[in-house]
Amino acid sequence: MQKHTMSLLVDNEPGVLARVSTLFSGRGFNIESLCVAETLDPAVSRITLVTRGDDAVAEQITKQLNKLINVIKVTDLTATECVEREMALIKVSAKADFRAEILRMVDIFRCKVVDVSPTHYTIEVTGPADKLQAILSLLKPMGIKEVARTGAIALSREKK
Amino acid sequence: MQKHTMSLLVDNEPGVLARVSTLFSGRGFNIESLCVAETLDPAVSRITLVTRGDDAVAEQITKQLNKLINVIKVTDLTATECVEREMALIKVSAKADFRAEILRMVDIFRCKVVDVSPTHYTIEVTGPADKLQAILSLLKPMGIKEVARTGAIALSREKK
Repeated sequence: MQKHTMSLLVDNEPGVLARVSTLFSGRGFNIESLCVAETLDPAVSRITLVTRGDDAVAEQITKQLNKLINVIKVTDLTATECVEREMALIKVSAKADFRAEILRMVDIFRCKVVDVSPTHYTIEVTGPADKLQAILSLLKPMGIKEVARTGAIALSREKK
Repeated sequence: MQKHTMSLLVDNEPGVLARVSTLFSGRGFNIESLCVAETLDPAVSRITLVTRGDDAVAEQITKQLNKLINVIKVTDLTATECVEREMALIKVSAKADFRAEILRMVDIFRCKVVDVSPTHYTIEVTGPADKLQAILSLLKPMGIKEVARTGAIALSREKK
């Protein structure tokens, strides 16, 4: 099933996210990830969501989203060239033996250490989903205590 | 009204996000921002959301969230010391006169330029909400074409 990244501009009002997510679940589609936050205009929020399905299904969902109250604009970014990024916070066990190796990875993946305790490091990493997956796999053997991921956000690329 | 950051572990199934967001809108509460994505266990997703209300209301919501099917764990991070981070992609007009100034800001705020066209730069920035607000205000006079924000994710700090 193909991955579809959709970007929605919606009114920043209670109930809009509930209507959007109910539209997906009503059709049995899972939302793999979703981000919603204000835009420059506090009355408007942007929802970026990732779902899986064939193109016909995605087109049908786009049409139905467009019909929803408080949905201003829907863009399916799947066929568009776009910059897609995700962020994760990873709390990893930092035993003395592992510290140097963790810091080498932080360096290679251009992450930031955002919290340090005697037993754990918390690392901030940004990038495409596969980069996040790569660093998670590498850190896993050291003991990951907690992960929080944002899910993807995306903007179309400008013409070169 | 106080800001509340809540972190939920939920089953990664269609309908869970719809139920959570309907619980908020049913009580007239707006979700200011929300992120949902998989955890290390693909069967479990983490939802991080920010809402506003007094402590009594937040406590009531926490209790009702705990009663929902498919909700595994709810943590109100408001009173906890935590690392809270957000990411934004900002597409800003890059006229010749502004380019040097934009790159200076990218440097000061430790952002990354993730796309360049003859007319626009796309910038990736991470940090607490107030840092994102600061760079958005500084870039606004140059002409911001589009913004996508993730909303906050958070992990509790380990004891020092």
